[in-house]
Amino acid sequence: MTTSFTVTHKDGASRARLGLLKTPHGTVHTPVFMPVGTQGTVKTMTPEEVRDVGGRMILSNTYHLYLRPGHELIREAGGLHRFMNWDGPILTDSGGFQVFSLGPLRKVSEEGVCFRSHIDGSEHFFSPEKAMEVQMSLGSDVAMTFDECPPYPSSREYVHESLERTSRWAKRCRDFHRKEDQSLFGIIQGGVFPELRRQSAQELVKIGFAGYAIGGLSVGEPKNLMYEMLDFTVPFIPEDKPRYLMGVGSPDCLLEGVIRGIDMFDCVLPTRIARNGSVLTRRGKLVVRNAEYARDFSPLDPDCECYACRNYTRSYIRHLIKAGEILGIRLTTIHNLYFVLRLLEEIREAIRNGNILQYRNDFMKAYQEGPL
Amino acid sequence: MTTSFTVTHKDGASRARLGLLKTPHGTVHTPVFMPVGTQGTVKTMTPEEVRDVGGRMILSNTYHLYLRPGHELIREAGGLHRFMNWDGPILTDSGGFQVFSLGPLRKVSEEGVCFRSHIDGSEHFFSPEKAMEVQMSLGSDVAMTFDECPPYPSSREYVHESLERTSRWAKRCRDFHRKEDQSLFGIIQGGVFPELRRQSAQELVKIGFAGYAIGGLSVGEPKNLMYEMLDFTVPFIPEDKPRYLMGVGSPDCLLEGVIRGIDMFDCVLPTRIARNGSVLTRRGKLVVRNAEYARDFSPLDPDCECYACRNYTRSYIRHLIKAGEILGIRLTTIHNLYFVLRLLEEIREAIRNGNILQYRNDFMKAYQEGPL
Repeated sequence: MTTSFTVTHKDGASRARLGLLKTPHGTVHTPVFMPVGTQGTVKTMTPEEVRDVGGRMILSNTYHLYLRPGHELIREAGGLHRFMNWDGPILTDSGGFQVFSLGPLRKVSEEGVCFRSHIDGSEHFFSPEKAMEVQMSLGSDVAMTFDECPPYPSSREYVHESLERTSRWAKRCRDFHRKEDQSLFGIIQGGVFPELRRQSAQELVKIGFAGYAIGGLSVGEPKNLMYEMLDFTVPFIPEDKPRYLMGVGSPDCLLEGVIRGIDMFDCVLPTRIARNGSVLTRRGKLVVRNAEYARDFSPLDPDCECYACRNYTRSYIRHLIKAGEILGIRLTTIHNLYFVLRLLEEIREAIRNGNILQYRNDFMKAYQEGPL
Repeated sequence: MTTSFTVTHKDGASRARLGLLKTPHGTVHTPVFMPVGTQGTVKTMTPEEVRDVGGRMILSNTYHLYLRPGHELIREAGGLHRFMNWDGPILTDSGGFQVFSLGPLRKVSEEGVCFRSHIDGSEHFFSPEKAMEVQMSLGSDVAMTFDECPPYPSSREYVHESLERTSRWAKRCRDFHRKEDQSLFGIIQGGVFPELRRQSAQELVKIGFAGYAIGGLSVGEPKNLMYEMLDFTVPFIPEDKPRYLMGVGSPDCLLEGVIRGIDMFDCVLPTRIARNGSVLTRRGKLVVRNAEYARDFSPLDPDCECYACRNYTRSYIRHLIKAGEILGIRLTTIHNLYFVLRLLEEIREAIRNGNILQYRNDFMKAYQEGPL
């Protein structure tokens, strides 16, 4: 079987909607947030823990797994699901974003991208076909087309040229991809230029994909500009296909994205700030490694029911982080992922109840007050 | 209540024995191995995971907790058990071993030891009374006397002088200690000199403690010399008191220690080598980070039923460790602690069945063959 998508409910006052994404590894309710397992592991966590905090579908990175341990090795292991012992759905990105982030370490041509490994400096070549080959070896449920993601700000001219190449690459991906139990999503580019977003969306829809991602946002542009791009771009994506906003995961952007019709998100934010000793709470971000929490014997977030909040104090978690103890960042990671995944649960509930706009307002009001 | 000890079974062919150590936080079966939670956490693990791998009693380090986060803070948190969310028995060492390991950073006098923190270089003073005060604040079930642990090799003269000071310090600890729900164990020193071991044991027994540790072994001397010291020292410890061999945890030494009448052990070895990518197996140590395991899709130890061996391959764990992913050392830590704690379970079973010597021989034969 391949992945299929059904919209089950539409909000009356916004573009928010509920859906079911059926994959060979189970069905997930959308809007969904996918925790990021860059190197075949959601950092610090076991698969059981990811599931316990509410994770149902994860993202893993083609670029990283291609370089280490290698997609051939993972294929020999029986695919990424078996290799990492995660039996839920996996989406893999195409490696495009990472390769283009390498800056001077890469060279782009019509054929593809030549780049040097960030690990050992060795030379590699990624093309649309190679990105498909690698993702087919990994065996993810959803593969992404190989795209170019221009930085912000970029000139209209460059973004235009780049999106047209991205469309040609998307076509090559579509033509090369053949794996019955893996779906292929296209990635819409176009920077912050509405007409270019429209052009990109229309070209990709013409090729035809199982889902459409909006890439190249949350790369440094003001949030309002991102929201405008969503307002403008989403209508060009067919109603019956999943819409995936790549690399977005802060609570405000998740809410604004859902309201604009986004079904899928991924982001390293919750797990990355956790490892820096910061946690998300109903009252905003709290830097638990700060000295003010040394003798604070309350939980990270008094309104949270995650494992960390049920069993440990800010004081203890701060001690662990200051002392370099791994359990500290395990607990902040568990908390942050639980927080974001619980937020998505409440978002789905609010859409179901027809009050997503009110929910957004109430949530953001408390979130902006600052931690207790 | 305070800690009490009962010998429940004695082996006929060796000094091995079974016992029950009752503490205010539960009863443990001896011989017991205590995982080390230096800074108030068994590195990388939650308390539930420690229990799942078979941990029943843990050790934590007075020196480290005194410096960070501070014993006063832990007292305010309700004691170490509550601070770290471990409701089983805890033994704290006295800080002596760590302070003396600081080398040029410390100065010894009859009154105590002046030392500099390894964290920030700040100056501190530890005396027998201070070591008691700190451990009473931590609220461990078993506290240890403040001792001096001479390095190996040391001159007979120095070891003699040092053990006599250790005896005087033990008396001061005994006099100062007052906490009804905390037991105090004395530490026998004397290096590798039988007469000095006897003198130390006799002086401590005269003062009278709830248990006796053998310190200053496994500090670089040949293993046979350690075994000789155990043969010689154990008979001077009253039969009805627990005997604790400090800092020992390799499979061979655990077996030889049990056979010589030891009831309690602690060691960082299983958790430390785990973090270096080495695991204990029935066929000896295996360095899973080595290249030869890159495509080895078998478990760490085919004979093991721990969480890591039931769910992951050598190939995946090696990938995680090479990629610097925390889950890698979580899995090797789980495996190594499970291995050692399971070994102790089998040891207790063998003593019960009267075949501990045969068990030792069989175990060591396979262990010396090298990994599959």
